[in-house]
Amino acid sequence: MDFVTGSAPEGRYEIADLRRCERDGQEVTVHGAIHARRDMGSITFLTLRKRDGVVQCVADAGIDLTGLSEEATVLVTGTVRDDERAPNGFELAITKLQILSTPAEPLPVPVSKWKLNLNLDTELNLRPVVLRNLRKRSVFKIQEGLGRAFRAYMEGQKFTEIHTPKIVHAGAEGGSNIFRLDYFGKKAFLTQSPQFYKQMMVGVYERVFELAPVFRAEKHSTPRHLNEYTSMDFEMGYIQSFTELMEMETGFLQCAMALLAQEYADDLKRLNLTLPSVEKIPALRFDEAKRLAAEKYGRPIRDPYDLEPEEEVNISRYAKQTWDSDFVFVTHYPSKKRPFYAMDDPADPKYTLSFDLLFRGMEVTTGGQRIHSYEGQVAKMLDRGMHPEEFTQYLMLHKHGVPPHGGLGIGLERLTMKLCELDNVRHACLFPRDLNRLEP
Amino acid sequence: MDFVTGSAPEGRYEIADLRRCERDGQEVTVHGAIHARRDMGSITFLTLRKRDGVVQCVADAGIDLTGLSEEATVLVTGTVRDDERAPNGFELAITKLQILSTPAEPLPVPVSKWKLNLNLDTELNLRPVVLRNLRKRSVFKIQEGLGRAFRAYMEGQKFTEIHTPKIVHAGAEGGSNIFRLDYFGKKAFLTQSPQFYKQMMVGVYERVFELAPVFRAEKHSTPRHLNEYTSMDFEMGYIQSFTELMEMETGFLQCAMALLAQEYADDLKRLNLTLPSVEKIPALRFDEAKRLAAEKYGRPIRDPYDLEPEEEVNISRYAKQTWDSDFVFVTHYPSKKRPFYAMDDPADPKYTLSFDLLFRGMEVTTGGQRIHSYEGQVAKMLDRGMHPEEFTQYLMLHKHGVPPHGGLGIGLERLTMKLCELDNVRHACLFPRDLNRLEP
Repeated sequence: MDFVTGSAPEGRYEIADLRRCERDGQEVTVHGAIHARRDMGSITFLTLRKRDGVVQCVADAGIDLTGLSEEATVLVTGTVRDDERAPNGFELAITKLQILSTPAEPLPVPVSKWKLNLNLDTELNLRPVVLRNLRKRSVFKIQEGLGRAFRAYMEGQKFTEIHTPKIVHAGAEGGSNIFRLDYFGKKAFLTQSPQFYKQMMVGVYERVFELAPVFRAEKHSTPRHLNEYTSMDFEMGYIQSFTELMEMETGFLQCAMALLAQEYADDLKRLNLTLPSVEKIPALRFDEAKRLAAEKYGRPIRDPYDLEPEEEVNISRYAKQTWDSDFVFVTHYPSKKRPFYAMDDPADPKYTLSFDLLFRGMEVTTGGQRIHSYEGQVAKMLDRGMHPEEFTQYLMLHKHGVPPHGGLGIGLERLTMKLCELDNVRHACLFPRDLNRLEP
Repeated sequence: MDFVTGSAPEGRYEIADLRRCERDGQEVTVHGAIHARRDMGSITFLTLRKRDGVVQCVADAGIDLTGLSEEATVLVTGTVRDDERAPNGFELAITKLQILSTPAEPLPVPVSKWKLNLNLDTELNLRPVVLRNLRKRSVFKIQEGLGRAFRAYMEGQKFTEIHTPKIVHAGAEGGSNIFRLDYFGKKAFLTQSPQFYKQMMVGVYERVFELAPVFRAEKHSTPRHLNEYTSMDFEMGYIQSFTELMEMETGFLQCAMALLAQEYADDLKRLNLTLPSVEKIPALRFDEAKRLAAEKYGRPIRDPYDLEPEEEVNISRYAKQTWDSDFVFVTHYPSKKRPFYAMDDPADPKYTLSFDLLFRGMEVTTGGQRIHSYEGQVAKMLDRGMHPEEFTQYLMLHKHGVPPHGGLGIGLERLTMKLCELDNVRHACLFPRDLNRLEP
């Protein structure tokens, strides 16, 4: 019998430690993968890939490098010395090297290159190794930062985190883009959104959030659709106006940009990114936005009830040119294009108290106020030819009292895509799922 | 056009604010739901349910309470005054009351009672309203704290958060307990574990974690199984021994208990819980644990390769009696009961470098070191009659180099269940999924 005490193992140096390290010849030990090996005659340069960057290591002829291939993992002991040509301004002069693992085959693509320029399909097929590329890796550090900021902001605003089921008996968004599965002989679906559940939980905790996968059986393949994505959802009660939801999202974005600037500077630099300003975000009514963009860019309005992708691009362009903003809220979407739980604008019920957030030409958020009265919700369902008796448990929320509330869902991959200036949302998903792709 | 600036709306008082509030007759405004209404002749007591507790409000005859039913949501203005009989030691003398929403029907169960004592099925059917009970609500605050602690600890230990697909082309755990779905005409599955993906990501970030749903098509109904649950997974590279994984988990548990004690004291008190000590956790070998429990409690060993639920109970009991520990690690599980990626113990390949963590009689974690050599992994697959060519993309990780690594998965609901001393894991899941339950 032994006791486990939660103690950390003896220290190995990370890049942050090496940066702070005295240059006094003290030996340090680091682990990592051989990202690149360059033999220069009497000496060999090894680029060691660590979780937080790379370290240049130098081996002279006295160090045995037999069998040391790229992507081997090693334990290296050496002394740190300044070298302004090396990453981070220092290198490690190796005194001892131990191989921990050796690959069976060389990499199929040169992941240590700065840019890979692979065909999308090849890249996705080779995803487990392509992600070892430093710039690819940085995209998902940025994504991590966005998720962290979302949760940190929500917690600060006293939202409670919830976990709701992904296997459901009815879809929240309706329509045909829903995955079906057999659940012990019963018909079931994969959730398109935590909508029903987060509304139920407003009756419990007032403010709730969830960061979790959602599933959409989109039958078309576009650079902006994934069949499985990560949705950052919140729902808040006791709102006086749906604009509070937009204020909350703007607050999150401010928190996110601050966190990225502070803790992800290396990744931003590696991707050569400038963070957008989110100090203030313009908000335009749907009909106004449509008209302004049509007038400015001479593109006729074809669908008065929805925004075409090109219109989203033009409205964003308009906001950028007019207010120098990469983000723009579009409010008051037409009722007929919004789901049955959307609250109509009392001032004009053809429109809803709802909004989308566009970021650099693409919708990254849909949100709005929900109907909270039982009679109102049942009436709107009947009006749409729906059967309220199929939604008994959802309607329990309205029947037994819920405060005025609303919420939104943010697509994490789309937000990452636009922030990292990627041309396809698949690049912003570790292992994307689309019409033709189910692996890796 | 308006600008959204991320500003918070004018302040409404939360319970924490009211606790700090001067008792000087200043008027404050709070919102909440009418948890209970008691008419006492000339005055009426209203228990206002807020996200962080309840506030006692008192209305004299001058306040119009017409139509104010339980579960109505309201905006109340009043003055705070000390009252030692009230929750938190104060009450609000109402000067103004505005109804925000009114339920269409009274609650089917008295959620304002301290204990509900409902039949499990009734309780789960009425989940959206039952969760409004203060003690029910506290269970999921504790659950939130466990998730927060997991992420905070992982971040502190330099793990990177990842999001991996839930729709997959092959199961990680194998066996028949896997949900199948049709993916645009292709056969697909719901993931049983992020195992393959987190291992792939060790080659990218060294240390990764994920908190996400997993799916198990268990065809039996027990108090300890859910068909969808939340798994807290991590995987770490460059380990020297699998005991580092247990150290990491112990560190997480220490972090979790500290966070709960600090930020969830109200919930712990409401549930009358004492947090277990996690300063040190005993670790016993599988065969030793089995033998000790059999000897001590006189229960013969029937299955030498696995632990029966009763054995888990007895080993926990043994650990409690011997070392006063609510947790116990059981290490070196037999190879034939562990998955194909488990690393066998070089000292005795009949056993693996793996472990379970038992908590108060139930397994809450399975973990261990994984095979990292390509030849080793292919050999073990062939040995088990598997077809390595069906795992090409998974094996890319071994083929192209990965450090020695291991990881674990913690069942969030089971951890919550045992911590909150619940008798069925369904009580530790907001909206459980089981053999017979797909809604709400």
